Amino acid sequence: MVPTINYSISKSDIEKAHSRIRAHIHRTPIFTSKAINLIAGCELFFKCENFQKVGAFKMRGACNAIIQLSKEQKKNGVVTHSSGNHAQAVAKAAAQQACKAYIVMPRNAPKVKVKAVKAYGGIITFCDPTLEAREEGVAKIIEEKSASFIHPFDNDHVISGQATAAKELLEDQADLAAIICPVGGGGLLAGSILSAHYFGNKIPVYAGEPVGADDAFQSLQKGVIVPSKNPKTIADGLLTSLGYRNFEIIKKGTRAIFLASDKEIIAAMQLIWERLKIIVEPSCAVPLAVVLKNKAHFKNLKLGLILSGGNVDLDSFFKTISST
Amino acid sequence: MVPTINYSISKSDIEKAHSRIRAHIHRTPIFTSKAINLIAGCELFFKCENFQKVGAFKMRGACNAIIQLSKEQKKNGVVTHSSGNHAQAVAKAAAQQACKAYIVMPRNAPKVKVKAVKAYGGIITFCDPTLEAREEGVAKIIEEKSASFIHPFDNDHVISGQATAAKELLEDQADLAAIICPVGGGGLLAGSILSAHYFGNKIPVYAGEPVGADDAFQSLQKGVIVPSKNPKTIADGLLTSLGYRNFEIIKKGTRAIFLASDKEIIAAMQLIWERLKIIVEPSCAVPLAVVLKNKAHFKNLKLGLILSGGNVDLDSFFKTISST
Repeated sequence: MVPTINYSISKSDIEKAHSRIRAHIHRTPIFTSKAINLIAGCELFFKCENFQKVGAFKMRGACNAIIQLSKEQKKNGVVTHSSGNHAQAVAKAAAQQACKAYIVMPRNAPKVKVKAVKAYGGIITFCDPTLEAREEGVAKIIEEKSASFIHPFDNDHVISGQATAAKELLEDQADLAAIICPVGGGGLLAGSILSAHYFGNKIPVYAGEPVGADDAFQSLQKGVIVPSKNPKTIADGLLTSLGYRNFEIIKKGTRAIFLASDKEIIAAMQLIWERLKIIVEPSCAVPLAVVLKNKAHFKNLKLGLILSGGNVDLDSFFKTISST
Repeated sequence: MVPTINYSISKSDIEKAHSRIRAHIHRTPIFTSKAINLIAGCELFFKCENFQKVGAFKMRGACNAIIQLSKEQKKNGVVTHSSGNHAQAVAKAAAQQACKAYIVMPRNAPKVKVKAVKAYGGIITFCDPTLEAREEGVAKIIEEKSASFIHPFDNDHVISGQATAAKELLEDQADLAAIICPVGGGGLLAGSILSAHYFGNKIPVYAGEPVGADDAFQSLQKGVIVPSKNPKTIADGLLTSLGYRNFEIIKKGTRAIFLASDKEIIAAMQLIWERLKIIVEPSCAVPLAVVLKNKAHFKNLKLGLILSGGNVDLDSFFKTISST
């Protein structure tokens, strides 16, 4: 008998979030591969959030947060700092609501990300590449424009939105034994825990984390948030420390966090590209990497893996092709 | 009024092929991208044969040909020469029919292709990298084993099988104004012409061909098969000359063949990877390349593009990632 756990976000919060955002997101497909199952020794169901709008699950949370703003708030716009998928999601979700999006980005952000945010209509302010400078940039915009801050993960609306990915996965594949997702700030992990609890017969949720950014692993062991210090990993979506709201959920509901090295992450990413014929980013390959590393643990189980995103800078690859 | 054309393969041949192979292939999805539509100035529906078994449409034709062999023929096995997707398709389709597959491959075939054929249970014979040596290798196996030769394209059963890709596309998206596919030996093009004729209100079919392997373009202009001489293109699936049976259909039913340079093919391939988040091989990107090159011709039309396959050697890309 699984003990009842009380979470700050209710079943109804997630159901409402799903109704709210449904028309603004894609219901992404679930992919399977006999070849990967054979290698992994279990049955894997990949929820393809790389096919989500803006190429990542982040669209769900950003949508849910921005739709709920008042008319007045929408008029003043939203603001966030990010050099990653959250920036694109906020820009796109804000545009859907005819709302301005101010995005504070570090000066050294990849050009491809800057281009994408601009394409979605985001208004970019560049800053120095430090967390301090980013937060200062955001504070200034809040003061000047009265814009609403949309935190990338430490926000109940964002968590409820991210929860809809696992909710859909469980609706489409009801007999899963567990769900595995990557963990960075903890938006997707917290959301997946809630959906497994409310919509998935309380099946266990595991997380995969890079060895070089193992702050969530350490936080879970110590029972307090251990900040991410000089993280170094190819999984560039998983560098941040856990959020407060996220950790409250994660410490109650995570069965275990498994670690994977960058080498293992890259091998898993290559397997997904080659066998599923889809583009996923390194952060996205961490769950498969930990499944392949812990085969005995997952033997013969039906597992749901959330493929979090597919935004990879392909320029260098295509330059190499062009020059041959 | 479109004049009636008589083809050697009937509507019923293709319907029967589809029933025959349905359980042995994937019904592949159709993908769309607002971003690509905006760039192209028309509405594109991508039939994702990169998600087909063995990663290419070739599975359809190989299946249809091999299933129809007699018990005796299946006992003796099948043989083909190929270093590409057809080799994998024959190996896989033969394995499904509990039938041996002898594959003659040039000694310099990419290791990844050799590995894939072996993984599907194919029995490989290596030969010198010339067409003569390949054909000799096949002749020897036919003599020794009484194996049945499965030609990669110049075979009515193979053409009927390939036709099912466009048939499915038209079933799922009935209002297309035209279909565009790549042309190499002409199996997919001939099949698509037949399906557009029988199942698609005789909508026009176009082909895309690399500038560096423009033998089909020349053949159509001259009315006779012009053999492919020293073709040079990144689209390595489109190097062969047209087949006889294929040309009979292609010259009756192709609206036009458009050419694209390797640079244009690579740019189209990158667009598909980045926007659709899927892996396609260079040959597969030729139809999009010709759409982007002939925007005025296709303006505002609903076009079905057949993404023929997704087998790319990703080792070098992942080696680069690993070393950074």
